[in-house]
Amino acid sequence: MEHNASTLLISCPDRPGIVAEVAGLLLEHRANIVHADQHVDREEGLFLQRIEFTLPPDGAIEGVEEDFAGIAAGFEMAWKLRTRERPTRVAILTSHETHCLADLLSRWDIGEMEPARLMFVASNHPDHGTLVGHHGIPFHHVPVAGDDPSAHSAAIRELADDHEVDLLILARYMQIVPPSTVEVYRNRIINIHHSFLPAFAGARPYHQAHARGVKLIGATAHYVTSQLDEGPIIAQDVLRVSHRDGIDELKQKGRDLEKVVLARAVRLHLDDRILTYGNRTAVLD
Amino acid sequence: MEHNASTLLISCPDRPGIVAEVAGLLLEHRANIVHADQHVDREEGLFLQRIEFTLPPDGAIEGVEEDFAGIAAGFEMAWKLRTRERPTRVAILTSHETHCLADLLSRWDIGEMEPARLMFVASNHPDHGTLVGHHGIPFHHVPVAGDDPSAHSAAIRELADDHEVDLLILARYMQIVPPSTVEVYRNRIINIHHSFLPAFAGARPYHQAHARGVKLIGATAHYVTSQLDEGPIIAQDVLRVSHRDGIDELKQKGRDLEKVVLARAVRLHLDDRILTYGNRTAVLD
Amino acid sequence: MEHNASTLLISCPDRPGIVAEVAGLLLEHRANIVHADQHVDREEGLFLQRIEFTLPPDGAIEGVEEDFAGIAAGFEMAWKLRTRERPTRVAILTSHETHCLADLLSRWDIGEMEPARLMFVASNHPDHGTLVGHHGIPFHHVPVAGDDPSAHSAAIRELADDHEVDLLILARYMQIVPPSTVEVYRNRIINIHHSFLPAFAGARPYHQAHARGVKLIGATAHYVTSQLDEGPIIAQDVLRVSHRDGIDELKQKGRDLEKVVLARAVRLHLDDRILTYGNRTAVLD
Amino acid sequence: MEHNASTLLISCPDRPGIVAEVAGLLLEHRANIVHADQHVDREEGLFLQRIEFTLPPDGAIEGVEEDFAGIAAGFEMAWKLRTRERPTRVAILTSHETHCLADLLSRWDIGEMEPARLMFVASNHPDHGTLVGHHGIPFHHVPVAGDDPSAHSAAIRELADDHEVDLLILARYMQIVPPSTVEVYRNRIINIHHSFLPAFAGARPYHQAHARGVKLIGATAHYVTSQLDEGPIIAQDVLRVSHRDGIDELKQKGRDLEKVVLARAVRLHLDDRILTYGNRTAVLD
Repeated sequence: MEHNASTLLISCPDRPGIVAEVAGLLLEHRANIVHADQHVDREEGLFLQRIEFTLPPDGAIEGVEEDFAGIAAGFEMAWKLRTRERPTRVAILTSHETHCLADLLSRWDIGEMEPARLMFVASNHPDHGTLVGHHGIPFHHVPVAGDDPSAHSAAIRELADDHEVDLLILARYMQIVPPSTVEVYRNRIINIHHSFLPAFAGARPYHQAHARGVKLIGATAHYVTSQLDEGPIIAQDVLRVSHRDGIDELKQKGRDLEKVVLARAVRLHLDDRILTYGNRTAVLD
Repeated sequence: MEHNASTLLISCPDRPGIVAEVAGLLLEHRANIVHADQHVDREEGLFLQRIEFTLPPDGAIEGVEEDFAGIAAGFEMAWKLRTRERPTRVAILTSHETHCLADLLSRWDIGEMEPARLMFVASNHPDHGTLVGHHGIPFHHVPVAGDDPSAHSAAIRELADDHEVDLLILARYMQIVPPSTVEVYRNRIINIHHSFLPAFAGARPYHQAHARGVKLIGATAHYVTSQLDEGPIIAQDVLRVSHRDGIDELKQKGRDLEKVVLARAVRLHLDDRILTYGNRTAVLD
Repeated sequence: MEHNASTLLISCPDRPGIVAEVAGLLLEHRANIVHADQHVDREEGLFLQRIEFTLPPDGAIEGVEEDFAGIAAGFEMAWKLRTRERPTRVAILTSHETHCLADLLSRWDIGEMEPARLMFVASNHPDHGTLVGHHGIPFHHVPVAGDDPSAHSAAIRELADDHEVDLLILARYMQIVPPSTVEVYRNRIINIHHSFLPAFAGARPYHQAHARGVKLIGATAHYVTSQLDEGPIIAQDVLRVSHRDGIDELKQKGRDLEKVVLARAVRLHLDDRILTYGNRTAVLD
Repeated sequence: MEHNASTLLISCPDRPGIVAEVAGLLLEHRANIVHADQHVDREEGLFLQRIEFTLPPDGAIEGVEEDFAGIAAGFEMAWKLRTRERPTRVAILTSHETHCLADLLSRWDIGEMEPARLMFVASNHPDHGTLVGHHGIPFHHVPVAGDDPSAHSAAIRELADDHEVDLLILARYMQIVPPSTVEVYRNRIINIHHSFLPAFAGARPYHQAHARGVKLIGATAHYVTSQLDEGPIIAQDVLRVSHRDGIDELKQKGRDLEKVVLARAVRLHLDDRILTYGNRTAVLD
């Protein structure tokens, strides 16, 4: 997307005149619409739109925001306006596996996730502290005490709240996120599941895939809901495998899928390209 | 796309206010915008838009068309408005190879290409007359006399003109289309080339691919221009191959690519999803 | 594969010396091994091999067969030797949907399935009689009487037995194959399921896929077992979809997958490239 | 592949009896063949084979090697026997771009490249010294003096020779490897080119791809020869793009392709799965 662009995400009950009204308002503010994508879900009677626009040098995004709030109320819109000046604040939660974490860190290193800011990485294991430190990112080791994850979960939540995190990335984080956190961070927690959901939901998907003898393995990035592995799907991809691939080969090949699919989903979120409705997403790319 | 929808394709120099103006006009006519996709090519300063809309039962597309012509002139728009009531008229040109032709015919059989009408099939060989006849489509055998294709080309052109053909599909048609026909049917002739263009342009691409030892073969559907294999690309796909595949295996596997990629490009054209600019396409799907 | 080649498929408990013994026997008969692929499943302790070989002009496949039977007994081999002189006999069962049937018929037309012979097509609906007739293949309309499919199933079975069919292709055949037929035609009935199994097993997979909001749809060709949609998977592929695709678009796009994946599985079977073990396949391509 | 397995790669003029002879020798040494793949290129009259085998605990690979040398001479074989005890020695050459380097380093971190040893990383720029140091790998900054790369090339060559490097990985290394080094390290230098070769060979492939308006971009890993971008292709993959992707987006998406394709090629090489013949590879996976 354009480096100096703002994005506007809209979802509301469909009715005539929305496009004209929104376009009219942007024109008033001398905005230039760089890219727009709009979709109506006829079954749900739902209007979905993403607009990417630039303002003239002397334009003020605050003015757009204020005026838009007026329109939005009339159309019962859920909406989100984001500008380059308010970068998304991100945190990564992880566990033993390191490939997704290492991949995300090196994307931040080369500026691929700009302007989003990576606030911290937290893990129930101390292993990755050194790696994260090398990238100049704060690392928090938050152990799980025995069988009771509640203290861990509370500490993670506190970290997220304290850092005013906008997006939580679960980079092979093997813990359950409690419903209260899911609720508050609704559509703001992205998980990577190492299968082509809904196939092989739950534990050990590569073992399941091997037992079933599938010819493709997959990975799925989705928003986390209180139903495990059931949240709205953001991105999926697959890779060809064969009878020659044992569990270890599936895991090895799968890692390439997982890290690429997770990163793709994170970028789509950071570019404000995802609208959720019902338990589905519209990816306006 | 919606069965009763109209589509509007627009391309023009970019400037503020286009979206608002078009949306305003559609609102006046009580049109409901089902889907809209808009893109600005910053390098070219070009605005591109596709709008799919429905009118209320008592609405009149002629009114929309008339009013729109006024706007269009002001914005220097190239535009196209199509309704379900004016189905696209299609002809297929072919030669010896039958897989693309057979595939297209069976798509027309099951209604996949509706509401487009298949007017005729013509070939420089008589072979496929029976097949085409079984599908209830007129077949014209237009031989090439010796080394001089000019009479053949003229006859094909006359057939196309007489049937007021909107789209010519080259389904493995091995003849050169003369510049005069290319000019008149600009962006209305779709060819399938059996390689991942620009790799292996020209003759015998599977032989070239085999000699080079590539690990993927491809197929490319493109609009025909006077530069052979150089026209704007509409759709491409690839398939994995290996050292075990000889020329015959490449041809066999390639056929599956060719027919699927050609059909995809034809559908995109029939749904008015393709805008060309420079030597490229924007596919607004 | 080579046009004059024979293929040998072997599966047996793994132990040292199998490769040397088989290679020695072929050498004695002056066979030239064109291609060989061998795999040991360590978990199952299973040896799997496919050999493609040619004999000299004065060689006799019967001699190979006889001698091989001796070796095979010693190693407890399940094996299959096929030559070009004994072409596979195939029948297609279908129902309303025509895309897989039409595609298979045109593949036979252009010689892609040679040397396999298509003996007949049977359907519970009369619709496709004309289409099949045009291709010069016998068509049998075998209706299902009310709710009781048993007479239909028995008639189909009789047709298959009478024609000494080696392979039954279920080309969107919506009937259940009774266990007795599944047993006799074990690993000789190929079905196409219009999802990426095991996701969306059962009825209406495109509706299921749409409801779940997946970003890829798939198709799966598998051998039929008495467990519905649970048989050994032969081939799978997927296609990218989005929120813009309604059920109709999913069906349309899915048809391209279904026909290509089914045809690929049939070719793998006809080339004797598939070994089943447990509920899985090794595809030795 | 099996953790304790040895691999044997063979290529020689095709003639009867090779398979039997090799299998017989392995049997004598009580080797168990875990996986074997064999291919005859009929056009070239070339026999190619890869065998993966294990020896019993008291077996000696030296004995196999010695005996095999005898057979090999008789059949005019080019061959390579590798065991887990002699790990491949690898070096990475790089320049400004960091994604391929960072990706390879993290693969070594998690053991994915075992048992291969990463000896050093060298670059014409000092930038990545810190990154490489964090992974505990020696880093050599070898600057290019003005327009004359010969001192740089000589120093790189000396480093490789001194460390007895078996494989050189060009991870977006933008320098030309001189013919003398190419000759000595024949089929032991792997480069990643950021296009689907042979399309867009040479400089700035993403600019070329953008100008041509392709719908897929690719990446190609190949062995380096003295002809730039013309060496034997090992692995290729592609990714879907659209008119919405500018040069920057192509680069960003392309990075995911480049690193995955390069790593795949390196793994294939390390597992001794690649045989080159003419200017092509047989990948026996």
